Amino acid sequence: MLNIPALEKLVHELSRLPGVGPKTAQRLAYHILQSREEYTDRLSDALHRVRAEVHTCPRCFNYTDSDLCRYCEDEKRSNETLCVVEEPSDIMRIESSGAFRGRYHVLHGAISPLEGVGPQDLRIRELLERVDKGLHGEGPCIKEIILALDADLEGDTTILYLTKQLAGKNVKLTRIAHGVPIGSDIDFIDDRTMGRALENRVEL
Amino acid sequence: MLNIPALEKLVHELSRLPGVGPKTAQRLAYHILQSREEYTDRLSDALHRVRAEVHTCPRCFNYTDSDLCRYCEDEKRSNETLCVVEEPSDIMRIESSGAFRGRYHVLHGAISPLEGVGPQDLRIRELLERVDKGLHGEGPCIKEIILALDADLEGDTTILYLTKQLAGKNVKLTRIAHGVPIGSDIDFIDDRTMGRALENRVEL
Repeated sequence: MLNIPALEKLVHELSRLPGVGPKTAQRLAYHILQSREEYTDRLSDALHRVRAEVHTCPRCFNYTDSDLCRYCEDEKRSNETLCVVEEPSDIMRIESSGAFRGRYHVLHGAISPLEGVGPQDLRIRELLERVDKGLHGEGPCIKEIILALDADLEGDTTILYLTKQLAGKNVKLTRIAHGVPIGSDIDFIDDRTMGRALENRVEL
Repeated sequence: MLNIPALEKLVHELSRLPGVGPKTAQRLAYHILQSREEYTDRLSDALHRVRAEVHTCPRCFNYTDSDLCRYCEDEKRSNETLCVVEEPSDIMRIESSGAFRGRYHVLHGAISPLEGVGPQDLRIRELLERVDKGLHGEGPCIKEIILALDADLEGDTTILYLTKQLAGKNVKLTRIAHGVPIGSDIDFIDDRTMGRALENRVEL
């Protein structure tokens, strides 16, 4: 459509980013063309650098640029509670709440038969190994695992699978609460959330 | 916040793109990290290639990768009408309507005193030169200039300026019509658009 192969290629590559459709990709490509030449160099350097320097932490699979990630390295955090999340970006949401001071484990996805993602594609084996090592005294003993997975079908499937795998391992298994978000109007809450909020009501 | 300088740099560079805030930039950066290694290489190649190959057409200032752009090169297009647009991307909108078969001229912006953009920052001098060359028989004679600029303050200011500059040059000056968009419900049209639609009503 643009009849300029180099521009079309850039639009094509940009449109592979999440939330970027062909129209947005075109707008971004035109912006890049209009910007100063240094910008393309800086963006392209940033892409190379992130690839070269950032890798997953061998213990929790969060992203890091050193041997272990900052949460695994931090001596002040409790080894007794482990929070399991789907993506590294979820850790930041939990950290900024300030309500958790334990360790993390990133699965890098959730079980989704529809998308062909099975337990073997996630960091579930490594999670079970971490728990087993604690049980055999080869690592820190984990007393509670908090599942902070997305409140969707994939998250629920993964929770079901993990519950089965962790049964009988003498670890307390919990999941984060679902309910009415703080500050929101009850009028606008959907039925399922309201159902869950009533079901999991807390005694005052 | 991320505590990984390479990742922070990528987020910073991505957040300079239009419509990409810090949150979106972070999501894009995480996606890039999760994608296969080839993707960063391909995106970075595309950035370099677009810089190396794409430049503005010396006649109309549209983007091109050859000497003249495809609209200036096309022998079948009329030299008598010239459509003036703000950005190269506007050309595609006009082309896909199929209602124009003349030549283009890209101003690369609009006059905006608030943002410090004056007539000297745009391709206005080059537009006047094209018109003058036609008048002196040194180039194709332009009979009509259609101003297809944005329907905002900057567009209006630019139209006012161009009208003054082109006065007495024996060129018919028009602007694209403003009115109710096709297929839209009259209930949802704002007052100014409706005012313009009534003012510029067409006899049946």
